[in-house]
Amino acid sequence: MTIDNTALLTDQYELTMVSAALRHPMAHRPCVFEVFARRLPDGRRYGVVAGTGRLIDELARFRFGEEELASVSRFLDDDTVRWLRDYRFTGDIDGYREGELYFPGSPILSVRTTFAEGVLLETLILSILNHDSAIASAAARMVSAAAGRPIIEMGSRRTHERAAVASARAAYLAGVAATSNLEAARTYGVPSAGTAAHAFTLGFTGPDGPDEKAAFAAQIEALAIGTTLLVDTYDITQGVRNAIDVAGTGLGGVRIDSGDLGVLARQVRDQLDSLGATDTKIVVSGDLDEYAIASLRAEPVDTYGVGTSLVTGSGAPTAGMIYKLVEVDGLPVAKRASHKESKGGAKRAVRAARASGTIVEEILYRTVDDPPSSDGLTLRPLQIPLVRGGDPVDGLPTLENGRTHLADALVSLPWEGLGLSHGDPAVPTRYVLG
Amino acid sequence: MTIDNTALLTDQYELTMVSAALRHPMAHRPCVFEVFARRLPDGRRYGVVAGTGRLIDELARFRFGEEELASVSRFLDDDTVRWLRDYRFTGDIDGYREGELYFPGSPILSVRTTFAEGVLLETLILSILNHDSAIASAAARMVSAAAGRPIIEMGSRRTHERAAVASARAAYLAGVAATSNLEAARTYGVPSAGTAAHAFTLGFTGPDGPDEKAAFAAQIEALAIGTTLLVDTYDITQGVRNAIDVAGTGLGGVRIDSGDLGVLARQVRDQLDSLGATDTKIVVSGDLDEYAIASLRAEPVDTYGVGTSLVTGSGAPTAGMIYKLVEVDGLPVAKRASHKESKGGAKRAVRAARASGTIVEEILYRTVDDPPSSDGLTLRPLQIPLVRGGDPVDGLPTLENGRTHLADALVSLPWEGLGLSHGDPAVPTRYVLG
Repeated sequence: MTIDNTALLTDQYELTMVSAALRHPMAHRPCVFEVFARRLPDGRRYGVVAGTGRLIDELARFRFGEEELASVSRFLDDDTVRWLRDYRFTGDIDGYREGELYFPGSPILSVRTTFAEGVLLETLILSILNHDSAIASAAARMVSAAAGRPIIEMGSRRTHERAAVASARAAYLAGVAATSNLEAARTYGVPSAGTAAHAFTLGFTGPDGPDEKAAFAAQIEALAIGTTLLVDTYDITQGVRNAIDVAGTGLGGVRIDSGDLGVLARQVRDQLDSLGATDTKIVVSGDLDEYAIASLRAEPVDTYGVGTSLVTGSGAPTAGMIYKLVEVDGLPVAKRASHKESKGGAKRAVRAARASGTIVEEILYRTVDDPPSSDGLTLRPLQIPLVRGGDPVDGLPTLENGRTHLADALVSLPWEGLGLSHGDPAVPTRYVLG
Repeated sequence: MTIDNTALLTDQYELTMVSAALRHPMAHRPCVFEVFARRLPDGRRYGVVAGTGRLIDELARFRFGEEELASVSRFLDDDTVRWLRDYRFTGDIDGYREGELYFPGSPILSVRTTFAEGVLLETLILSILNHDSAIASAAARMVSAAAGRPIIEMGSRRTHERAAVASARAAYLAGVAATSNLEAARTYGVPSAGTAAHAFTLGFTGPDGPDEKAAFAAQIEALAIGTTLLVDTYDITQGVRNAIDVAGTGLGGVRIDSGDLGVLARQVRDQLDSLGATDTKIVVSGDLDEYAIASLRAEPVDTYGVGTSLVTGSGAPTAGMIYKLVEVDGLPVAKRASHKESKGGAKRAVRAARASGTIVEEILYRTVDDPPSSDGLTLRPLQIPLVRGGDPVDGLPTLENGRTHLADALVSLPWEGLGLSHGDPAVPTRYVLG
């Protein structure tokens, strides 16, 4: 597999549509494609936009080299192959910044270019935004549920090896403190962290049986006493005793990975305190999701390690965003078949907030119209320029910017919007498409 | 991101465990690590092993280059960095072949090597097997539900852009006929297919309104009349009429992507037949999963297009496989804390079948013991050699081999095991660990 370009990370029909279009002026008509989600995952109150930064990076590498051209020439005519050889996106893209909340209908991305240039990007754009937004949306709920306690993302082993890297990035955007994933640390600068696995302790088993103390001593020798020891390989109470025996009361932390985490956290906290290890932190992990995190709020847990549920979007592994042609040569267009009506025409969005900062609605209006007014409310435009003439605009928000933006945006939700219970979107979307 | 090597697609703690281990002889003790799933996803009757072929490819690229070493040296000592520089897996791997069914406890992969070499591979091995097996397991149920009608996998846009490629491969292994994903076609030789999107038809909208016929004519001009036209952008009945008007009765197919697919398929079949297009196929798509596919069994559907549910594992996006140290220096080892007991010791597996071919149980026994006997039943060993001395063995099964193997294996299930209803694993797992 070649990662130097991303051109074949796409559906065959995007290329055959280009091939069919290129025989007609239609291929070169100015079009607007919009990305939006018809609905949020079942019961969710908000979504979090993620992946835009990755998309802009990948866009620059969406090029057809000789090897890719050879591969697609088996089903494409020569004119199309020639066109693909020269392909370079030359249009404009506006969109919601990473870390922005979104709701049903929010025009998360608007791509302005010719039909042929725009249709070609559909698959790549949706893959990235659907994946990363699904992870960030789930992670944001976990971060809220953790109420200030740090979460470490450790789900790489539960998802595709490259999706794991993007998941770690999206989770960090959403406020997770660190990741176990080393490629995410290298590529995106996400802080990385780790403890140890049961295998490490088991590895010290000898003819005389287990030797948990030897394992702990070896870990401390390598990583110093600030490390976190995994204490539940054998008996947890003995494990905690062994940990403090070996490390002393300055031990950084202990991790509990199984059992009734609430009960065990209390027991272990009492034991650590009675041993004098009052500053030793308790890390819990093991099938945690946002509900389990919330249920541990009253317990003496210092850090959550979250894996499976985070990297699989906690029941919503894809964000359900779609990429629709909404305008051709300035004319609004929309599919008219049953059940899947779309509102044609290029749109912009503003979010209305009270003076307190609490948001009350999202308003969509046609790009050609003036922004709506809303008495007594502040209206914040949601789309920013991302790409102009095919090139990323200068000074795009960084991953850290997006992380800060989301933290602020979550505070702006009406209080019930931050709850974990199922319900309607936190604010309604109003269409002003006169 | 560098794809030339896969060394950082791993969790930080694998490397810190190596660092701690290397100070002791323990790092070099011969170990056996096993991959298995404690249970199948809720209600599933069987799982399908997938990803082994990809894993063996990635293993060869699990190397620490200077850039990776620089990245990990921020938290590792010099001795460990030197060890990683020379790292090359030198052990043996046995495992279930791709396309093999698995059940709870099945020893899907056994890695024999030193502690340090083996622990380092945990994350990569689990990422690949958990992802690919989740997709293949869901896809196999869809293929069964389709009862011989072809399925086209078109879910790339609903998952991470690289996971999409692996998903297409896993779906093909499971019996899906083709994919929309071009990288999967190039890298793995999966047959690729495609129709057209609503955007294509909408793109022909002019000042006088929509022009569906112009869109159909353009598609046929480019792709000939064997193509499949999407007929539900506007009115379906008119769409079918336009399709046959433009293409003639030799049209390859029409696709319906919305509405009540069963009702519409019947209407469209009648209409096509009455127009004389009796050989024109009907492709249906739109939020199909195995249950929706099964519910269309009585309808005149020729091909299913499946997206979201396939690439997200239809409710089970990860296979829940774990990687456990089971033997150190010939001694069985196992975690002993509550709720997560594992059965220590390296294991082999055989599957028992009646003379009819129907399987009745899976039997796990210690590698050091003789295979069990089972009166009147055929016992088939399930593990094959995959890697010897760090190198792939010659003549490993191909993707096509795995596809054939699974098709045969599914026929061997007791009849209730192929049903879609929730239930227990299709056959029990018996441990003979005397």
